[in-house]
Amino acid sequence: MTDTVSAEQERREADLLERVVRSFDDCQDPRLRQLMTALVRHLHAFVREVRLTEAEWAKGIEFLTAAGHITDDKRQEFILLSDVLGVSMQTIAINNEAYGDATEATVFGPFFVENSPEIPIGGDISADATGEPCWVEGTVRDSGGDPVAGARIEVWEADADGFYDVQYDDGRVAARAHLCADTDGRYSFWGITPTPYPIPHDGPVGQMLAAVGRSPMRAAHLHFMVSAPGQRTLVTHIFVRGDQLLDTDTVFGVKQSLVKHFKRQAPRSPTPDGRTVNGPWSRVTFDIVLAPAGANAEAAASNK
Amino acid sequence: MTDTVSAEQERREADLLERVVRSFDDCQDPRLRQLMTALVRHLHAFVREVRLTEAEWAKGIEFLTAAGHITDDKRQEFILLSDVLGVSMQTIAINNEAYGDATEATVFGPFFVENSPEIPIGGDISADATGEPCWVEGTVRDSGGDPVAGARIEVWEADADGFYDVQYDDGRVAARAHLCADTDGRYSFWGITPTPYPIPHDGPVGQMLAAVGRSPMRAAHLHFMVSAPGQRTLVTHIFVRGDQLLDTDTVFGVKQSLVKHFKRQAPRSPTPDGRTVNGPWSRVTFDIVLAPAGANAEAAASNK
Repeated sequence: MTDTVSAEQERREADLLERVVRSFDDCQDPRLRQLMTALVRHLHAFVREVRLTEAEWAKGIEFLTAAGHITDDKRQEFILLSDVLGVSMQTIAINNEAYGDATEATVFGPFFVENSPEIPIGGDISADATGEPCWVEGTVRDSGGDPVAGARIEVWEADADGFYDVQYDDGRVAARAHLCADTDGRYSFWGITPTPYPIPHDGPVGQMLAAVGRSPMRAAHLHFMVSAPGQRTLVTHIFVRGDQLLDTDTVFGVKQSLVKHFKRQAPRSPTPDGRTVNGPWSRVTFDIVLAPAGANAEAAASNK
Repeated sequence: MTDTVSAEQERREADLLERVVRSFDDCQDPRLRQLMTALVRHLHAFVREVRLTEAEWAKGIEFLTAAGHITDDKRQEFILLSDVLGVSMQTIAINNEAYGDATEATVFGPFFVENSPEIPIGGDISADATGEPCWVEGTVRDSGGDPVAGARIEVWEADADGFYDVQYDDGRVAARAHLCADTDGRYSFWGITPTPYPIPHDGPVGQMLAAVGRSPMRAAHLHFMVSAPGQRTLVTHIFVRGDQLLDTDTVFGVKQSLVKHFKRQAPRSPTPDGRTVNGPWSRVTFDIVLAPAGANAEAAASNK
């Protein structure tokens, strides 16, 4: 609310808001009523605070319409919008509350695919995806420090050109797989050293980013989803120490605790499994700690 | 923010929000920066306050996607959404600030059409639209009480079945026209006694209204848009005293000052212009006061 609004004007605006809130009084689902009335209060607070003009309102309608029209089975502009406004990341944060030394979560992204190929420990996820080889290894433990034997680890990433396999024309599967940790919670695999790429920016979200002077680039990353019975499923990435884009990742996915040292290795230097790599390669360690299932509720209870 | 969130969790959520806000630091357009950062602050406040679940977030994305897909040249679901959340009405209120005894504005709605036919004072707007005849008369004055000679008055309304002419299949023009006030600011015309009708409710907005137990009905109304040089253009409706729907108008357009007495007249009773009406008819008076152009800025200055 600006300080230049008359008492009568203030009364009219507040009355209107209360009428809208009361319109949800008959909603039989208490959670839905809570969501709708909170949404209405925050939307009206925004409109009143900025004194939204009718032209700006029309621009907003036009933006949402364009986002709707570019969205199809393969392109989801509303998720991109949520991502670049940090709403996706905030939702993730809320649903994966801080719990002891549990590994932090980050955005899921649109490129996960069910039924990825299974690889053995030490296997290679890259298939024919281009990129510099990268040896990834670590352990999966619970919040008590015990190994999580057999934890299922899904990994997926873009190739050296910044494309996921689902963006290829030919339907082949590459740079995605799953494996299971051993009885000591250890895992390892060959992947690709991550490279940065832009989110799709040829639509209204891209136009908005350009208008506000923001880059559409994501910091380089490798996706993980780690699950095991009794543990909270962890959806996260690891990021590359030294990447210039860490501070401006356009979906705000970067957490300092997820930035890892990808150690560069000389061509033909010895590899962990004896494979010969003719060019440069890298290696990284990512030790994972899972929170228990129901950690949010537990954290909430312990804070009461 | 619930009271059950740990300090570490609170810090993570607040840090994320500040990173998102700072991402707009390089925006060269100060108004756009203000809009985007305020939008982000209010969106995040909503998500944090209700502790939005990932399933609820996904439902929101699905809702916006469905709204986008039903929207075309003739159907605008995002405007309906804005309407039923009171956001349209709040925007109208903000851009038409209270000014002395100036007539209150209300929602524009999707049914205005440019280049309506002109009628003389006392003419008939209904063409072949069905409905009970209604004689409408009044004056247009400025906020100093002087008549606004020649003020342009656009009027449009639904027929007795609740349909506007643009919803007919055959492209004919009915129940819309414009006329000009005389040198004393007086105007009059024959229209149709307004009847209630639902907003389009076969899409996601209609589903939402059903889920929260709200009616899709609008209170019966007659649209006006009144303009004259040097005056703030007034977009408003008049409503029918006694209409059962006044308190639950689904777009929150009703203002008490706009509820008018439509006086019922007996069949074949004398009419203002000597026309014979075989059935019942009604008459209503609507005296209009226009605020000066720039009234918002003036009101703001006077409140400083």
